[in-house]
Amino acid sequence: MANEYRQQDKQELLERLKRIEGQIRGISRMIEEDQYCVDVLVQVAAARAALNKVGLKLFEDHTRGCVARALRSKEGGGEVIDELIDVLHRYIK
Amino acid sequence: MANEYRQQDKQELLERLKRIEGQIRGISRMIEEDQYCVDVLVQVAAARAALNKVGLKLFEDHTRGCVARALRSKEGGGEVIDELIDVLHRYIK
Amino acid sequence: MANEYRQQDKQELLERLKRIEGQIRGISRMIEEDQYCVDVLVQVAAARAALNKVGLKLFEDHTRGCVARALRSKEGGGEVIDELIDVLHRYIK
Amino acid sequence: MANEYRQQDKQELLERLKRIEGQIRGISRMIEEDQYCVDVLVQVAAARAALNKVGLKLFEDHTRGCVARALRSKEGGGEVIDELIDVLHRYIK
Repeated sequence: MANEYRQQDKQELLERLKRIEGQIRGISRMIEEDQYCVDVLVQVAAARAALNKVGLKLFEDHTRGCVARALRSKEGGGEVIDELIDVLHRYIK
Repeated sequence: MANEYRQQDKQELLERLKRIEGQIRGISRMIEEDQYCVDVLVQVAAARAALNKVGLKLFEDHTRGCVARALRSKEGGGEVIDELIDVLHRYIK
Repeated sequence: MANEYRQQDKQELLERLKRIEGQIRGISRMIEEDQYCVDVLVQVAAARAALNKVGLKLFEDHTRGCVARALRSKEGGGEVIDELIDVLHRYIK
Repeated sequence: MANEYRQQDKQELLERLKRIEGQIRGISRMIEEDQYCVDVLVQVAAARAALNKVGLKLFEDHTRGCVARALRSKEGGGEVIDELIDVLHRYIK
């Protein structure tokens, strides 16, 4: 199934992901340079929080876009909600 | 404070981080190509789980290394435990 | 704003919560009896997982109920989605 | 294996758990009274955060107590660390 992100959301998501890529590279560098593990753990927590924000933004765009469209359609969107809850299980555990 | 990772742990961590970097780039590509948001959400969850494993590996190495050393030293390691619990708060919330 | 849970969902949620209450009392007992902290930590993790399932069930019922209704209404449900994403932030962090 | 919590930590943990029990009962009441699901979700998130704090307190007491003792003993505490990391996996996922 294809999807069309709003141009602005797309740009925001790609910029966030670019920053996360940089964070991951920074963590590798810290480990290569034998930096103190607690400092590395703080950076891993920061990258994880940034990734969670990407997930939340995607949940938001998905609900406003596909879910809303499906719920307003004749089919009623039951499947789209099943799918949404299914993926939510991967985040809340 | 400096730190010395065991060579094998270091290699394992760097490989995991390399894979995560690839996962993040893959997610950017999916968004650029307007792939279905639920599929993107599944990949974000996978990158997040991989990052958690890096965190857990660092906690393990840190406990076996710095924490153990500090607890066996004359000073008793009280501060090192404060620091460990402090960073744990960023992961469990 | 009032809400009406489907009778079956309500029953299921109340039973889950009853069990969690029992789990919490069990944890208190373990601590009173000075049981080994790792065993207590395992039980706390179990209660936490059970509570997450209650949260997920509520998200599901809410999306199928209130969110679906709002999205199909004339107003379009924008506010209901804001609210949903807002509460999701408390679970994914 | 038995364990001895410091009296003050024990009291603090039992009080926190008592409050969580009350929170769980409050959530059941909200559902019985058909209160709005987003309000219920906020209370579930609060109980979950309170339970996480109990977990963190237990991790702290365990590290300061059993882990420290084991690491200072002749056996070196390798097993105690395995066990600690193992239970940490249940919290970070």
